[in-house]
Amino acid sequence: MPQPYRAPLRDMQFVLRELAGLDEVAKLPGFEEASDVADAVLEEAAVFASEVLDPLNAPGDREGCTWRNGEVTTPKGFKEAYKQFARAGWIGLPVPGEYGGQGLPQLMVGPTHEMWSAANLGFSNGPGLNQNAIETLELTGNDEQKHHYIPKLVSGEWTGTMNLTEPQAGSDLAAVRTKAIPDGDHYKISGQKIFITFGEHDLSQNIVHLVLARLPGAPEGTKGISMFVVPKFLLKADGSLGERNDVWCASIEHKLGINGNPTCTMNFGEKTGGAIGHLVGQPHRGMEYMFIMMNAARYGVGVQGIGLADRAYQSALAFAKERVQGRDLKDMASRSAPPVTIIHHPDVRRMLMSMKAQIEAMRALAYVTAASLDIANRHPDEKVRAEHKAFIELMTPVVKGWSTDTAIEICSTALQVFGGMGFIEETGIAQQYRDVRITSIYEGTTGIQALDLVGRKLLRDMGKTAMRVVGDMKTFAATLESSTDPDVLAIREQFVNGIDAVAAASLAIGKNAPTDIAASFACSVPYLKLWGIVAGGWQMARAAAIAEKKIAANDVESEFYKTKLATARFFADHVLSQAAWLRHEIVNGSSSVMRVSEDAFELDRKVMTPA
Amino acid sequence: MPQPYRAPLRDMQFVLRELAGLDEVAKLPGFEEASDVADAVLEEAAVFASEVLDPLNAPGDREGCTWRNGEVTTPKGFKEAYKQFARAGWIGLPVPGEYGGQGLPQLMVGPTHEMWSAANLGFSNGPGLNQNAIETLELTGNDEQKHHYIPKLVSGEWTGTMNLTEPQAGSDLAAVRTKAIPDGDHYKISGQKIFITFGEHDLSQNIVHLVLARLPGAPEGTKGISMFVVPKFLLKADGSLGERNDVWCASIEHKLGINGNPTCTMNFGEKTGGAIGHLVGQPHRGMEYMFIMMNAARYGVGVQGIGLADRAYQSALAFAKERVQGRDLKDMASRSAPPVTIIHHPDVRRMLMSMKAQIEAMRALAYVTAASLDIANRHPDEKVRAEHKAFIELMTPVVKGWSTDTAIEICSTALQVFGGMGFIEETGIAQQYRDVRITSIYEGTTGIQALDLVGRKLLRDMGKTAMRVVGDMKTFAATLESSTDPDVLAIREQFVNGIDAVAAASLAIGKNAPTDIAASFACSVPYLKLWGIVAGGWQMARAAAIAEKKIAANDVESEFYKTKLATARFFADHVLSQAAWLRHEIVNGSSSVMRVSEDAFELDRKVMTPA
Repeated sequence: MPQPYRAPLRDMQFVLRELAGLDEVAKLPGFEEASDVADAVLEEAAVFASEVLDPLNAPGDREGCTWRNGEVTTPKGFKEAYKQFARAGWIGLPVPGEYGGQGLPQLMVGPTHEMWSAANLGFSNGPGLNQNAIETLELTGNDEQKHHYIPKLVSGEWTGTMNLTEPQAGSDLAAVRTKAIPDGDHYKISGQKIFITFGEHDLSQNIVHLVLARLPGAPEGTKGISMFVVPKFLLKADGSLGERNDVWCASIEHKLGINGNPTCTMNFGEKTGGAIGHLVGQPHRGMEYMFIMMNAARYGVGVQGIGLADRAYQSALAFAKERVQGRDLKDMASRSAPPVTIIHHPDVRRMLMSMKAQIEAMRALAYVTAASLDIANRHPDEKVRAEHKAFIELMTPVVKGWSTDTAIEICSTALQVFGGMGFIEETGIAQQYRDVRITSIYEGTTGIQALDLVGRKLLRDMGKTAMRVVGDMKTFAATLESSTDPDVLAIREQFVNGIDAVAAASLAIGKNAPTDIAASFACSVPYLKLWGIVAGGWQMARAAAIAEKKIAANDVESEFYKTKLATARFFADHVLSQAAWLRHEIVNGSSSVMRVSEDAFELDRKVMTPA
Repeated sequence: MPQPYRAPLRDMQFVLRELAGLDEVAKLPGFEEASDVADAVLEEAAVFASEVLDPLNAPGDREGCTWRNGEVTTPKGFKEAYKQFARAGWIGLPVPGEYGGQGLPQLMVGPTHEMWSAANLGFSNGPGLNQNAIETLELTGNDEQKHHYIPKLVSGEWTGTMNLTEPQAGSDLAAVRTKAIPDGDHYKISGQKIFITFGEHDLSQNIVHLVLARLPGAPEGTKGISMFVVPKFLLKADGSLGERNDVWCASIEHKLGINGNPTCTMNFGEKTGGAIGHLVGQPHRGMEYMFIMMNAARYGVGVQGIGLADRAYQSALAFAKERVQGRDLKDMASRSAPPVTIIHHPDVRRMLMSMKAQIEAMRALAYVTAASLDIANRHPDEKVRAEHKAFIELMTPVVKGWSTDTAIEICSTALQVFGGMGFIEETGIAQQYRDVRITSIYEGTTGIQALDLVGRKLLRDMGKTAMRVVGDMKTFAATLESSTDPDVLAIREQFVNGIDAVAAASLAIGKNAPTDIAASFACSVPYLKLWGIVAGGWQMARAAAIAEKKIAANDVESEFYKTKLATARFFADHVLSQAAWLRHEIVNGSSSVMRVSEDAFELDRKVMTPA
């Protein structure tokens, strides 16, 4: 049986309060109560995750979703859990009170979303999409749309989807072909969308599809895409449910993981020549709107990775404390020594530490980024807002790409701790390994995140934001010089190497850009990873400095802080120390990436010539 | 639909002839024809893999095995394929002619086993185990056992299994409890074994179980384990099939992958108080015998990793050449540029090169190790034999651990190239990702390989063998100094850094051993990985030096050699450059691994104290 999920509440609290500045966020207009309610929100969320969502995780994976004649049935228990989830107010956590939400900061979305994802990724994709749809409508919809749709999405009576992908338009949305023809006060939408999460299901009365499509005569490429709201059931003038719209689920996918949520092929207008939709915002600005939503969605998927990694780590830890196998190394000579639990074995301990250290670094970077989002949205000083906005834009692809790639490795490491039992589905860890694999793919693959990081975030402003963050990191690193703690000093050393590596790699990419654009982008993924370990290392170094002070002051939680310091040290020596490798790869290895021609890739398989 | 499998024949031929010294192996007694027949053997194997095994791979995964009342049915087509496989002589490839085998070198097992694994891992686990059983009986069985069992195993009429694991005895076989009670000319075996691959099936008339069990009064631990042969159907005096023995399959596992082969729980003697078995070799020497077999089995699993990685790479390459998405980076400014296949994108190219380079390095190291096995077995000079034996012992855990860990990463990278399509089971790449995951677990996890590497291979002889190999690598690296080729010089630089890292890491481990045994073993897995990339880098550097000469001589296959050189360069800059990181991790990071106490691991999850 899978291990039950227990949320890492103490570490979440540490990150929120001591690294991400919850108290500062609570000074922003409208968030006055955030700090006071935070602990209660976290504890309630932890209970909900453990008691409602977690028990449905393994059964949901086994049962999966079923499609019959266009109707999709979700796994047993999902429908009731969704009602409970909505009733408890979780969907509306960051939504303004006027729509029925709780109006809490984005910062609080980090830990709660982490818990939902860890407890049940398939389920949590539903409310995650709702939040995205709500945010998009809130920012771009007209008053009627906001008034009709958002409260119903918040209450859970209706759910939302994002309809972007088409068979020929995956990473490249410029290739979208779905059409929207004006027809009176609405549009007739026709085309096929694929990979639509919760495109059809039995959780709610209505499904609100946000759909990318082209108007007649629209420009080619991304600048000719508009956004439409296409509900499964049309709305009457008063907003109540009317007729069935011509949008149908043609099939669902048989996937490697996340079997709890249906992944649908959606046909628009196949029966009547056009599903009825309404334009959201202005014509041809759909991609821009989607990007508003996509940043939140990308951040959210990064947090999913953290949640899954943490849950897998937790399962491995419990197994390592329980499974008795082999003798302690120091007793190897004695044949009569009793066998021990495998957490005693240094290699198992190393795996556990490696998971723990990376998860804590990823969590810290993610929540710190979320706090910036709140500041960018609400700080009274425009300059402060702009700086935080630039920081979020730089960090979003990093949080998404680095956290998910690392999460995949961590889930694999966790499975490894289980040994042969890990390969048996009943243990539950195999599901984690399968489920997590989607996170580095959906909402933009790691390659797409890295393209965004290098193209839009590094090169577009000529490295200005990147160098400002490098400067901030250097300033902080300098404050560590006066420490007398050997751990803090060792951490500082690796951190400084990491900062230098980011600077050198950024420069190399910038230098290549005008003359060899392919070389400039060739190591964009290693560059993203480098940013991840260095910015994550930054947060761990900040945590170490705080821990040093708390330990010196004999804090009542000294054990917690000692563990944090040891974990930060581990991160520096085992993870951040990759910076030299990544620097070499980017600076010296970029120009060799394109050398082997497309045809030459086949030479290893050519039938042999006579010797 | 999954891509069809095409064996990498040209690269296999290159490694066999130019790196592993097939012609030298063919000078050993009994292998005189090996070089002449090698190409034909490879081509026939490639055809068999593509035409017979590959078409059963995806259907076998989907259908899986079924258990009913102790009988196990394998997927449709497996039975007929097994007959064809045996009839074509593949089971007996390395088996002496007197038992009906082909008597070819172990070197030839490398590429053929790679092809079977790539084409159909679930299937190929059957004949792989047969070869292990044959080898064990050949080396340790009495004449009657050899005479009765081996020819039937070679012909495919019977199959073999290895019964080691018990619920409480996985990595630690010292905990084996299965009993063997003397009873006349045989023994009564009773106990339960788990995770028994092909423990029960419908492919053959009889199943020959090699079983680890304890005699009454046997010493505790591994020195009290004996080996028994326990056939499913007992043999009459003339070796023909007699009565059903009391060994039954209680259930099969529901696994993450390798669904083509059953993984069985086997009950011995449950109905009659003891299955009838015969002692193999001498009492209490079962572990020693199993180790003979296990080295071959571990090598074999390393090669499985290479096969799966290569197949996944090949699928990703084909997809990258076919899938059109996005514009060429150099045309990003032009909105009218046509979309291109994704192999044009630098990040995709980097992923492909990374897979290609690592696979070629792993293949080279594996086949070179296999050639050493033939030399160690048959060379007339005892000193040469001993040196090669020591090399194999050092490299077996590296080939097993490094190739499988890397294969898991490569299959994940290949899936990434497919993007969203990779997560859909019908593409086939998800199966690779699931199947490959077992390879770093069975026949000893990577942790167990690393324990073997550090404990038995490095520390036991005080680093003598390791330092000899370091010396050999240095000698070779020195020959590269005179090159004028910038690639070769760049490769040499990374190679030298790698050699120094191995030397420094070995020294650090040796220094820790007497005072802090846990620190000595704490980074054994990074140490194994370091050996992998450096020894693999050595083979790639050798390949680069050969390529340099061939290109200078205007060889007819210059394109092949140019690609090899570019691939070796890529390996040096992107993979071998990890040496500095691993060195730091081992030398500076080992002592921090055990710092966090077992209890302190829980502190992140403690319910929050009031702030």
